[in-house]
Amino acid sequence: MHYAEQPSAPYSMISRRHAVETQVNNVVGTLNLLFALREHVPGCHLVKLGTMGEYGTPNIDIEEGYIEIEHGGRRDVLPFPKMPGSIYHLSKVHDSHNIHFACRTWGLRATDLNQGVVYGIHTEETALDERLLTRFDYDEVFGTALNRFCAQAVIGHPLTVYGTGTQIRSFLNLRDTLQCVGLAVSNPAGLGEFRVFNQFTEQFSILELAQLVSRAGRALGYSVRVDSYVNPRVEAENHYYNAVNDKLLALGLEPHYLGDELVQSMLRTIARYSDRVNAEAIEPSVRWHPGEAEAVPGEALRGEALLDETPRRR
Amino acid sequence: MHYAEQPSAPYSMISRRHAVETQVNNVVGTLNLLFALREHVPGCHLVKLGTMGEYGTPNIDIEEGYIEIEHGGRRDVLPFPKMPGSIYHLSKVHDSHNIHFACRTWGLRATDLNQGVVYGIHTEETALDERLLTRFDYDEVFGTALNRFCAQAVIGHPLTVYGTGTQIRSFLNLRDTLQCVGLAVSNPAGLGEFRVFNQFTEQFSILELAQLVSRAGRALGYSVRVDSYVNPRVEAENHYYNAVNDKLLALGLEPHYLGDELVQSMLRTIARYSDRVNAEAIEPSVRWHPGEAEAVPGEALRGEALLDETPRRR
Repeated sequence: MHYAEQPSAPYSMISRRHAVETQVNNVVGTLNLLFALREHVPGCHLVKLGTMGEYGTPNIDIEEGYIEIEHGGRRDVLPFPKMPGSIYHLSKVHDSHNIHFACRTWGLRATDLNQGVVYGIHTEETALDERLLTRFDYDEVFGTALNRFCAQAVIGHPLTVYGTGTQIRSFLNLRDTLQCVGLAVSNPAGLGEFRVFNQFTEQFSILELAQLVSRAGRALGYSVRVDSYVNPRVEAENHYYNAVNDKLLALGLEPHYLGDELVQSMLRTIARYSDRVNAEAIEPSVRWHPGEAEAVPGEALRGEALLDETPRRR
Repeated sequence: MHYAEQPSAPYSMISRRHAVETQVNNVVGTLNLLFALREHVPGCHLVKLGTMGEYGTPNIDIEEGYIEIEHGGRRDVLPFPKMPGSIYHLSKVHDSHNIHFACRTWGLRATDLNQGVVYGIHTEETALDERLLTRFDYDEVFGTALNRFCAQAVIGHPLTVYGTGTQIRSFLNLRDTLQCVGLAVSNPAGLGEFRVFNQFTEQFSILELAQLVSRAGRALGYSVRVDSYVNPRVEAENHYYNAVNDKLLALGLEPHYLGDELVQSMLRTIARYSDRVNAEAIEPSVRWHPGEAEAVPGEALRGEALLDETPRRR
């Protein structure tokens, strides 16, 4: 199981140095691993953490790693075209190409878990005792959308929606990521096979997440504001998004879907540690295009007011 | 014009160290250049040397960088899927993804010249005086197919056809590569555009090249043998191959097509320097899959005997 990569898109976009560090760390680390497998354990099944962000937001359904293309009266099944949105996501695209090559050239076998955005705090194990809690990232660089919003709600910071918040992404509960890894390990790829799973359970727009956290927060007595920030990223805010996730479900994945109860539970856990939150690490400062205007907090938006603009949820 | 990359597929396959060196040199060099452009000359037109080898040998026509895909009743134009055949070719795929990202995220502009296999010795300038001759690679690592065969014919070494020689690739004359670069520079991409040209003029099978060199060599009095070697690469020997090359022709490229006269001229030039050839650098020793059987020169084949198996030439 190879999780040893620099995992943050904003980190990779801070500077040239961070971009190079991200791609060298991730690409060379994976190359070294592939050569080690070839030399020492060529039959080993590699389970590698990829990301749904490799695909970007194409105007067609996102298949699991490959797509059958008919072109000029001929057909082939080829790698799904990639339009990733950051230097970090690019490093995962490079990994995918390198691992695919190693499988078809050296007969290695691998499963690439193209994971959606993970949310949640607890696994079955950590829930046993508060002392088993693991790292929780809430900052702009390493935090992911829902987790960040929960920390913001608890400390009274406006939820930092980038742009209109109509960007749609795929998500899954931390407990389900572990289920998925387990399923991949228990059902290995064949020799020479580069297998790709889209590892997520639901799709949401960012604004839907903000609305959910706002509602759950208010139920617990928090006063939650949702603000639109000038988008620090370069990304489409209005786009088609529909990704396939059949393979892990077929292997037996039982999703924990997102709901008010889970968010309220997260808010309660975060509240117990809210004195540790560094409020200065929250607002977005890393710009995808630093030449553009500096960030200014935009017009304050009540989430509810945008309900009609919210894209459909799968 | 960015030509500053490690350019050899066999070199990248020698060992883990060579693989890592190739990808770090090529990917980081290009990343550094992209950041330099962004910071200092964002309007500059980058002309980057890619390779036709990025595409591999798909069972559909190879378009120029992008392909329109209809899928599930929806359409998009996406990057052409890549199945490269070596760690070196992978480094060029990584470059293409990184440059594409820089163009759509930072508004840079670039032309990726996906070049076929270059043959020939002379340019207009070097033809003026023998002292202007440039480097000529004839060895297994840096030499390309036709140039290698010409050197082999002159020193009396069997032409080293890998496997059946029915692998089809795209080719162009060295003089035409310079025309193409000139055309790309004179007709820059638009701001934010990542433009891809397939830079070749003809397609041949490896065996067709061997037959051509054999015929031209015999016309000059050389006794040329064509041998099939156990293929040191992992590649399809029988496959569909048809690549589009419209864009450079539309810009005015006037091809120098391959023929007996050019090959005879190359043989004459090489003959004047044949005492410099190191015959030990010729036979293939770098294995794509080192775990497989060691190379042994295979059955000697007269090229003509295989004529019926030769794939069509475009």
